[in-house]
Amino acid sequence: MPLDKRDRPADIWGMSDPFPPPETGTALERGTVLTPRFDAAGLICAVTTHADTGEVLMVAWMNAEALRLTLESGAAHYWSRSRRSLWKKGETSGQIQSVVEVRVDCDQDAVLLKVRPQGDGGACHVGFRSCFYRVVENGALVERP
Amino acid sequence: MPLDKRDRPADIWGMSDPFPPPETGTALERGTVLTPRFDAAGLICAVTTHADTGEVLMVAWMNAEALRLTLESGAAHYWSRSRRSLWKKGETSGQIQSVVEVRVDCDQDAVLLKVRPQGDGGACHVGFRSCFYRVVENGALVERP
Repeated sequence: MPLDKRDRPADIWGMSDPFPPPETGTALERGTVLTPRFDAAGLICAVTTHADTGEVLMVAWMNAEALRLTLESGAAHYWSRSRRSLWKKGETSGQIQSVVEVRVDCDQDAVLLKVRPQGDGGACHVGFRSCFYRVVENGALVERP
Repeated sequence: MPLDKRDRPADIWGMSDPFPPPETGTALERGTVLTPRFDAAGLICAVTTHADTGEVLMVAWMNAEALRLTLESGAAHYWSRSRRSLWKKGETSGQIQSVVEVRVDCDQDAVLLKVRPQGDGGACHVGFRSCFYRVVENGALVERP
């Protein structure tokens, strides 16, 4: 006897299910319904900024489950493409991201999180506050956190 | 007789060729060489902010040619996934983006542009200054540019 949808993990019955299917045109761009446009791999790009300074902290990926958990829990969740697993930011590092605001772009294929990083206040595993600690200068990379 | 690499358009001899192949580990994260990690489709995520306000204006994609042209010309170029073509931002809208700074993240799979938008000063085709003009609030989208 087949399991009820509610009994199955999200990735079995389709990663986009927590959200309605994508709209088009005006409904997509001016509508009030969140209909994220996940890509062929079921992912959407997430840009995370510091809620107080506006600094861009990181770029990561979300599947529908990560986006749902982020909206429901108020803590940023992502999808790790390398580990192929859901990832609550800060679960091991302590750099939990308290979500202050979530925005979506015009064609709903990217989200913008404004967060307050907990723990040491950083977001990057290399040890910098932001992952974007290097500037391209005359074709070379210069660290300028 | 096969053409020399230099005689062929970039997309024939591989979109990543303007840059060295990706490094790993410390060289990737702390090195001084820009070795962008384009995805399987040859694209890298680009986040564009306003150089003066820090506001996130848009998220778009670049192939190697778009990144090369952006660095060389000082005007933002992207790759349109829907139109499957190189795209100089503002070429038709006048919203040319003068690039003030380019940053790359720790694992070099995302770039951050700080730009000054020309023309009407906007970046979004819908008419807002930023593409992220909608906030997710209680599951619905609210326009708050």
